[in-house]
Amino acid sequence: MADDNRFRVTYRIFAGDESEANTRAKDIALEQTVEIPDDVVPDGFIRDEIVGHVEAVNGQKNGSYDAIISYAPDSAGHEVVQLINVIFGNTSIQQNVRVVGFDAGPEIERRFTGARFGIDGLRALTGRKSGGLISPVIKPQGSSPAQLALIASRCVAGGADIIKDDHGLANQTMAPFEDRLKAVSDAVAEANAKHGTKALYFVNITGHTSNVVEEAFRAKEAGAGGVLIMPGLIGFGTAQHLAANADFGLPVMTHPAFTGPFVLTPTTGIDHAIMYGTFQRLAGSDISVFPNVGGRFGFTREECLSIADACRQPDGMGAPMMPSPGGGMSVDRAQDMVSMYGEDVVFLLGGSLLRQRDRIGDTVKAMRDAIDSI
Amino acid sequence: MADDNRFRVTYRIFAGDESEANTRAKDIALEQTVEIPDDVVPDGFIRDEIVGHVEAVNGQKNGSYDAIISYAPDSAGHEVVQLINVIFGNTSIQQNVRVVGFDAGPEIERRFTGARFGIDGLRALTGRKSGGLISPVIKPQGSSPAQLALIASRCVAGGADIIKDDHGLANQTMAPFEDRLKAVSDAVAEANAKHGTKALYFVNITGHTSNVVEEAFRAKEAGAGGVLIMPGLIGFGTAQHLAANADFGLPVMTHPAFTGPFVLTPTTGIDHAIMYGTFQRLAGSDISVFPNVGGRFGFTREECLSIADACRQPDGMGAPMMPSPGGGMSVDRAQDMVSMYGEDVVFLLGGSLLRQRDRIGDTVKAMRDAIDSI
Repeated sequence: MADDNRFRVTYRIFAGDESEANTRAKDIALEQTVEIPDDVVPDGFIRDEIVGHVEAVNGQKNGSYDAIISYAPDSAGHEVVQLINVIFGNTSIQQNVRVVGFDAGPEIERRFTGARFGIDGLRALTGRKSGGLISPVIKPQGSSPAQLALIASRCVAGGADIIKDDHGLANQTMAPFEDRLKAVSDAVAEANAKHGTKALYFVNITGHTSNVVEEAFRAKEAGAGGVLIMPGLIGFGTAQHLAANADFGLPVMTHPAFTGPFVLTPTTGIDHAIMYGTFQRLAGSDISVFPNVGGRFGFTREECLSIADACRQPDGMGAPMMPSPGGGMSVDRAQDMVSMYGEDVVFLLGGSLLRQRDRIGDTVKAMRDAIDSI
Repeated sequence: MADDNRFRVTYRIFAGDESEANTRAKDIALEQTVEIPDDVVPDGFIRDEIVGHVEAVNGQKNGSYDAIISYAPDSAGHEVVQLINVIFGNTSIQQNVRVVGFDAGPEIERRFTGARFGIDGLRALTGRKSGGLISPVIKPQGSSPAQLALIASRCVAGGADIIKDDHGLANQTMAPFEDRLKAVSDAVAEANAKHGTKALYFVNITGHTSNVVEEAFRAKEAGAGGVLIMPGLIGFGTAQHLAANADFGLPVMTHPAFTGPFVLTPTTGIDHAIMYGTFQRLAGSDISVFPNVGGRFGFTREECLSIADACRQPDGMGAPMMPSPGGGMSVDRAQDMVSMYGEDVVFLLGGSLLRQRDRIGDTVKAMRDAIDSI
């Protein structure tokens, strides 16, 4: 039954014994494909190819069982949305099963091209040939476009590589999308011209349109250097369409809003590395934002490193991408952060940066110096 | 500080004591809006209006605390995606906090119109003036358009009100979207003409395009009677755009794939009633599918009833909508199901129906008779 083209998902099943684990694995193989009882499955192509194949059920040290199930690429088609639906759509609603592994196999590797830019492409675009990239976030919500543009301009002067919209900037009346896009894009372009830099402005296109792809093109025309997408709120498909679209040709940054419950409970959902690494690469994201250890969220150092590894593994889907830990970065912690993440990383600088007000650029520069001195 | 226009979210906080609960509530009010430390918040409009107001923190019997936080409607704007981002975007990544209540307030009620059809509209479209609606699901994945169309035709003959695509039918080569859409729409139209019925075919538009709204219009042109959307995979925004679009004018059914982790752990995520009731109404869905008690998923009777209540409450957002429990319905259980859900409900009939093969229409008719005889 083995077929080299199939993709494989590893489900950790928390079952009472091996027999129960085997039964659950078989149920998952049906649930994620035909969604009918085994005795109703038509013989031939559907039973042989479409129904998931339970390839192994391996007992783990903690009493759980890892079931490896393979699926036909044609069960997913060519779209990341349906691929994720096959991986975990309905089974996400079951207790005691967690996705802990994914192996794309050759056919899915062919169909999904991954990040258009990845680490090397982002270094080329920003001119930052070595060392971690720095990305201040412009905020808070409620500010005017001019206020946000001023913060952006000061951060570029300080050596920021990427200016990122706060993920809460959508299309509110205080800073409507089109106005903010123009004001900040222009400010970043002016600052780049003045300082000889190549900072990129990633505008948030999530949350205020029926056609995010169209909006991404408008952002490009207005001079944005990239786009920010929240797959938890609009799915992974938009990133895939933009990454695969040669006419678009801007990098994509993805943000973890509204995805937390997938990772927070160890017996359900999806492993951190798969949600914030593997899935982001399947979707063609170039930069994956996730909550850093030591910030306001409870991710552990190991979880954060597993995400960074999944983002950068050379044998993952497409070009290796940049992990982007959010929070927990400061001049004092620069040494620790660089030794933890290495240099292929985008450090987000969040709200505490605003404490510097008109000296915000100096703080960005101090961060740059701290990173480069290590 | 009270402002009648604000919307309110109740967060259940699992904290060690009241002081910790108060601190967490204040943190949430910042996190979900300005996402900066309190000492950095600009005075005036942003501090007074944009930052969430902690209106109450009430101790609960189980040792948790319910924090009621109000937000400015302009923090959300006019789009359900950004509204949900404000309700729970980043806080979804925190342990020990769950969304258990939502009060739209007058301004959000004005901005969000809810379901276009709802219960009354669906009864008018289908001609089913009383009693629960019956919705067989056409499947399995891997079948040809002709095979799926034949199942649909037989189900219409048996008295089905709605023919629903299996949520795993996307755009795979075995039954490409356009071919399936045409074959099944035509089959349902023919069967309706023959039997004098008004069954609606809900085609799945999730998962295979960069422009789901455009695809929904193509579905309408081809004769589909409604569309199936999975907000877990493409967000809640598509449903909102279709529901608000008078030119579209077809009902929307939403499916729970890839949303399970939000409800499965009582100390994180979102209550069942809000995820599968309130949020679906905010998005303008007419029918909300959820896993029924007694099926393959572990939802309790109480959880299912809380969802049905949230779907049908007269004082909820827009027109009351149809809850649609999936699984667990049979002729034998019809009495129990009708006494549990009442008559404003869409009963999904899933994979076990296929066991009847060419007598599938008779089984649908037996279900209809069982419901009507109660």
